[in-house]
Amino acid sequence: DPQGWMSSWMLTIRTAFGPGCTLSEGRDRSAASEFRQKVRSGEHSWHTSGEVGNHVQANMVALPKEQAFDFLVFCLRNPRSCPLLDVLEAGTTAPLSVAPQANITTDIPRYRVYKDGVAEGLDGPDERKDIRDVWRGDMVGFLLGCSFTWEAALCQEGLTPRHIEEGCNVPMYRTRIPNAPSGVFRGHLVVSMRPYDPSKVDRVTQITSLYPGAHGGPLHVGDADSLFERFGIERERVGRPDFGDPVTVREGEVLMLWACGVTPQTAIAEARLPLAVTHSPGC
Amino acid sequence: DPQGWMSSWMLTIRTAFGPGCTLSEGRDRSAASEFRQKVRSGEHSWHTSGEVGNHVQANMVALPKEQAFDFLVFCLRNPRSCPLLDVLEAGTTAPLSVAPQANITTDIPRYRVYKDGVAEGLDGPDERKDIRDVWRGDMVGFLLGCSFTWEAALCQEGLTPRHIEEGCNVPMYRTRIPNAPSGVFRGHLVVSMRPYDPSKVDRVTQITSLYPGAHGGPLHVGDADSLFERFGIERERVGRPDFGDPVTVREGEVLMLWACGVTPQTAIAEARLPLAVTHSPGC
Repeated sequence: DPQGWMSSWMLTIRTAFGPGCTLSEGRDRSAASEFRQKVRSGEHSWHTSGEVGNHVQANMVALPKEQAFDFLVFCLRNPRSCPLLDVLEAGTTAPLSVAPQANITTDIPRYRVYKDGVAEGLDGPDERKDIRDVWRGDMVGFLLGCSFTWEAALCQEGLTPRHIEEGCNVPMYRTRIPNAPSGVFRGHLVVSMRPYDPSKVDRVTQITSLYPGAHGGPLHVGDADSLFERFGIERERVGRPDFGDPVTVREGEVLMLWACGVTPQTAIAEARLPLAVTHSPGC
Repeated sequence: DPQGWMSSWMLTIRTAFGPGCTLSEGRDRSAASEFRQKVRSGEHSWHTSGEVGNHVQANMVALPKEQAFDFLVFCLRNPRSCPLLDVLEAGTTAPLSVAPQANITTDIPRYRVYKDGVAEGLDGPDERKDIRDVWRGDMVGFLLGCSFTWEAALCQEGLTPRHIEEGCNVPMYRTRIPNAPSGVFRGHLVVSMRPYDPSKVDRVTQITSLYPGAHGGPLHVGDADSLFERFGIERERVGRPDFGDPVTVREGEVLMLWACGVTPQTAIAEARLPLAVTHSPGC
C-alpha cells in the first residue's frame, strides 16, 4: 500500500531521528505497556533509570497551548537537551506517534506541577502520582528523549552507569551555559553526569552517540576542574548535585556529561507560567 | 571558547539537518546577499530556480502567532514536504539562524497573500513584490527547505533539470496523499516533477538524498501510469501541472517526483486563515 507506507513514514516527527526513536513496525512493546500499567496502578512510583531496557524512555512537559509555540521553538533551538519525540494534540493525553496506548497524565511515576513557576511539594510526598485533576483541554503535552534510553545498552556491554550500580538517581547539575531563548523560555543547560574509567570513554561515547533522540553522545569528558572551566560547576558541587543523587567517583575516573531533560524544566520554572507540568527528575 | 562553540551549535535548528542546511562558519555568502539585493530592488522579480548555485534556497510561510503552533507541528509531522530551516520570532523579519541579513518581507520575488484562504492576484500582476504593508507584529515567519537547493548540484554533474534547460518553472502536481494533520492544517501532498533517462536516476537520487533539509531524495520514480496509481495524478495531467509550467518528457524517460514546498501553501489555503503569506510557487 504505497499510501500506507508513505503516510506512516511522513507522520514520524524526525527531529529525534535515529535508532530507537521512531516507532518501528512489528516490535514487541508489551514490556513497556506492562511497566506503564505498574506505574498507573501505583505499583511503581519512583525513578525509572534502568527500567524496561531496549525501549525509548521519555521526559514529559505539558503546558497551556498559549505557550506551546514558544516552547516548541525552544525545543528546536536546544535539540541536545530537548530532543522532541512527540508533540500531542492540545487536550490529548495519548502520544499517538510514539506510544498510542499510553496516557501522559497517569503513566509517569511522579509529576511536578508548577504554578507561576513554583513547583508544589518538591521532593516530598506531595509530588503528584497523577495529574488528572490539573489536566485541562487546552494543554499540550511534549515527550522529549531521555538519556535513560541508552542505559540498558550500556549495561549490556558491562558499562553500567554508577547510579544504577548504586541504586540511586543520576546526578544532575545546573551549568552556566545559556539555552537558546524562545519567547519566555530561556534558562541554562542542565547536564547529567556518569563517571567512567578513561579506557571506557570511547565505547560509552560510541554507544550513546547512536541515540541523538535521547541526548546523544556526551557534551564533555574531563576531570572535576574542567567542569568549572566549561560549565561553571565547582569541584565541591560534584558530590552535591542540583538534582538526583551523588554517586561514587573512583580514583582515576573521568566525568562524562550529557545534556539533560531537566533543562526544559528549569526553563519552565523560570518562565513563571501560570500552569505547567513535568515529570519529576529521574522519574 | 567552549561556551561559544556549544551555544552556536545548539542554536541550530536541526530538523533540517544535512549538508547545506546548517549555517556553516566562514563561508562566503556574498552571492546570496547580492541576489537578495537584486530581488529587494525589483531587479529580479520572477522564479528563482537555478539562481545562486551552492546556496540553500528556502520557501517562506508567515502567519499569525495564533496559528503558529499548529503550523509548526504540521511541519514536524510532514517533514518531507515541510523541512524546517528556521522559525522566526513573532514580528521579526530577519531569519537569524540561516540568513541574519535577510528580510522575509522584501527579499522574495513574488508573494501570495491569503485572506480567508483566498489568494489575491493569482498569477497576475497583482501578486505582490513585497509584503511590508500586510506585515503585522504578531506574525511568525517560517523558512522551509526548497528542492531548488540541489538543482545547482545536479547541473554541475550534467544532470540539469528539464525546466532549467527550458527556461521555465518546475511542474508541480496535487496528489491524493493526505498530509498528516495538525489543528486546522491538513490538505494533500504536492509534488514537483523532473523527467530523467533511467540511466541517470541513481545519481540524481544520490545527489538529492544528500539534502534532507531540501526535500531530500525522490518519493517516486516511474512512468506516467504509476503516477495515477500512487498519487492520483492522471496521465493527461502530466502536461498540465497544477502549479508551474509543463516540460518536455522525452521517449524512454521516467518521471521523478519529490515532495514540494507548495504542500504547506495548499494546506494554508484550505485552512482559510484570516491572514497568511507565502512565496509564490517557484519564486
